[in-house]
Amino acid sequence: MSEVHAARRARLRERCTAGGCAALVSRAANVRYLTDGAPPGAALLLAPDHDVLVLPREPWAEPERGWPPEGVEQVVLPSADGDCAVAAAELADRIGVQGLAVEEHHLTVARHRELARAAPRLRLTDLDRAVEQLRLVKEDDEIAALRVAAEITDHALGELLESILVGRTERHLALELERRLVDHGADSAAFPPHVGTGPNAGAPNHHPGDRRVEEGDFLTVCLGACYRGYRCEVGRTFVVGSEPASWQIELYELVFAAQRAGREALAPGAAYRDVDRAVRQVVDRAGHGDLLGSSVGHGVGLEIHEDPRLSPAAVGKLDACVPVTVEPGVYLPGRGGVRIDDTLVVRPVTDGGPELLTITTKELLAL
Amino acid sequence: MSEVHAARRARLRERCTAGGCAALVSRAANVRYLTDGAPPGAALLLAPDHDVLVLPREPWAEPERGWPPEGVEQVVLPSADGDCAVAAAELADRIGVQGLAVEEHHLTVARHRELARAAPRLRLTDLDRAVEQLRLVKEDDEIAALRVAAEITDHALGELLESILVGRTERHLALELERRLVDHGADSAAFPPHVGTGPNAGAPNHHPGDRRVEEGDFLTVCLGACYRGYRCEVGRTFVVGSEPASWQIELYELVFAAQRAGREALAPGAAYRDVDRAVRQVVDRAGHGDLLGSSVGHGVGLEIHEDPRLSPAAVGKLDACVPVTVEPGVYLPGRGGVRIDDTLVVRPVTDGGPELLTITTKELLAL
Repeated sequence: MSEVHAARRARLRERCTAGGCAALVSRAANVRYLTDGAPPGAALLLAPDHDVLVLPREPWAEPERGWPPEGVEQVVLPSADGDCAVAAAELADRIGVQGLAVEEHHLTVARHRELARAAPRLRLTDLDRAVEQLRLVKEDDEIAALRVAAEITDHALGELLESILVGRTERHLALELERRLVDHGADSAAFPPHVGTGPNAGAPNHHPGDRRVEEGDFLTVCLGACYRGYRCEVGRTFVVGSEPASWQIELYELVFAAQRAGREALAPGAAYRDVDRAVRQVVDRAGHGDLLGSSVGHGVGLEIHEDPRLSPAAVGKLDACVPVTVEPGVYLPGRGGVRIDDTLVVRPVTDGGPELLTITTKELLAL
Repeated sequence: MSEVHAARRARLRERCTAGGCAALVSRAANVRYLTDGAPPGAALLLAPDHDVLVLPREPWAEPERGWPPEGVEQVVLPSADGDCAVAAAELADRIGVQGLAVEEHHLTVARHRELARAAPRLRLTDLDRAVEQLRLVKEDDEIAALRVAAEITDHALGELLESILVGRTERHLALELERRLVDHGADSAAFPPHVGTGPNAGAPNHHPGDRRVEEGDFLTVCLGACYRGYRCEVGRTFVVGSEPASWQIELYELVFAAQRAGREALAPGAAYRDVDRAVRQVVDRAGHGDLLGSSVGHGVGLEIHEDPRLSPAAVGKLDACVPVTVEPGVYLPGRGGVRIDDTLVVRPVTDGGPELLTITTKELLAL
């Protein structure tokens, strides 16, 4: 992997170190993207002619492969109390770069002030989301990891569907999903699984609680595996026990149609907001537009929420090899709702169109 | 609970709204401390004469009790894409306060810039950790919640000790601990449980992995329940299967003595760094001082890591009713290590000295 990471650093250096400036990367997922396996708290300084990784003093478990990253000087903090980003800024000041671009969307005001104090001769500028921009389009190895993550996720969900659900609490179903993800080879769950039953089904911001699954309930689950650091998600809604009621069928078909419209809108060159609009139009037409959330999907990768955001106000266009979720949900307060969520990779029509990673059926199953 | 929260807001207002200024609280745990139950993303504006809670547009599950908070005006964001803190700043600008103190240790540079843009007539100052300072000394109800959290934690750990451990992976033991916490009534785990076996036992920053428990291993576990939002932790080290080896007994006795010294140093008026030193001296004398982490304990409450930090550089003194962990660990690379971790509440000698919340035995058990 080390050439991959060196190539990423080279791309960032090209963009950000013009005129003798250096870039300081402190956001954990960004440091990981550029070095692989650096421990939490590490900071990466990309100077025009060399790279320095500042590591915390605490001992940590080095990755088994690809460590240390080639061509990166390593410095360990002298004190256990120190801040790697501050130490990296100090170093930049000492080696005399012309300016230092820092991640203003990540650093707090207080920490930025410490950085400025540590590098009094440097002008601090904004690196902005330059690394997040690089992370947007995934390499083959990254997509391969997402594919495995999705396969694990589908397995874990499939097993749950074969078990008896009535009488079990949301909380226990969520923990069981997490265990099954790990059983099938996930590093961990990509995020704490969501489970909602009855009036909680499909409710935004609902945390799995003590409600037990009952006959006739809607049941929504949303889960994902993290595999080699890459995170995906799948979300499905089921009816428990009996034939679905007519309002349940109606609501399900609406969300299904909206989600399909979103999936079909995924293409290289499609504007983020047009994908959102494709979904929103379907729901609007049914008079439920106000019940849709603020976005209908988002990028995934080293983090479960990455750029792009598929929302009405989002600016930008999809590229090939960008993995995103399409996950509209419509929630009727007090009755419950439906969410359908897939992870897909944007591909041109010539390659067969969007690649669906999460293949669990989207039929309305009565479990 | 609502008078409790009103009293907390009154205390903050007293400290921070002199001269007609307002305070803007955006850090989630701080908003929760002052309002109870506000959803993620909410922001609280404390103006000299009234309080406004800005809520995100997304629907959310209102708490069953004590909602809405009395005496707090509620405003819901007009747009689903908005930022509650930005909207609160705009509001402060409109109602014409003299200045606005914001949480510079929480807001990113980019978000702070948006706030300044939204409130062009206001001078932004630093609220700093004013709310965290209020949160330091716990009220009776908070300590009662921590006591229940500790009881749940001890139960979950006790059950694990009665089960068969050899052959099971760290990951599965961690998931089982999480499930048992929930079984015994926790809202959730306070943090993902740590489990380390053999050479991973007691390793800092180790994540539970695929290593299976073997006879003769050290086994370290660290877990905690979250109950009504309050989080505690306990950590123990065991030997698996057989009689402990002599190096294991020696290392265990060292860490046990160090941890006891730390517990005994807890008293109202004791300097944070003196508690750290009490622990460190014991480990230093055995020649292992360099293997001790950067701090030997920390406050707990609504977050698992709160002020104070018990470390060599920490400035300040303990008060009565401050709950802290005492958790030294010594790790021998390649061989494994020992960590012993308790949650205690600082109490004066006249009240019987520090109150131990996590009562699981600290004998070296061979399981």
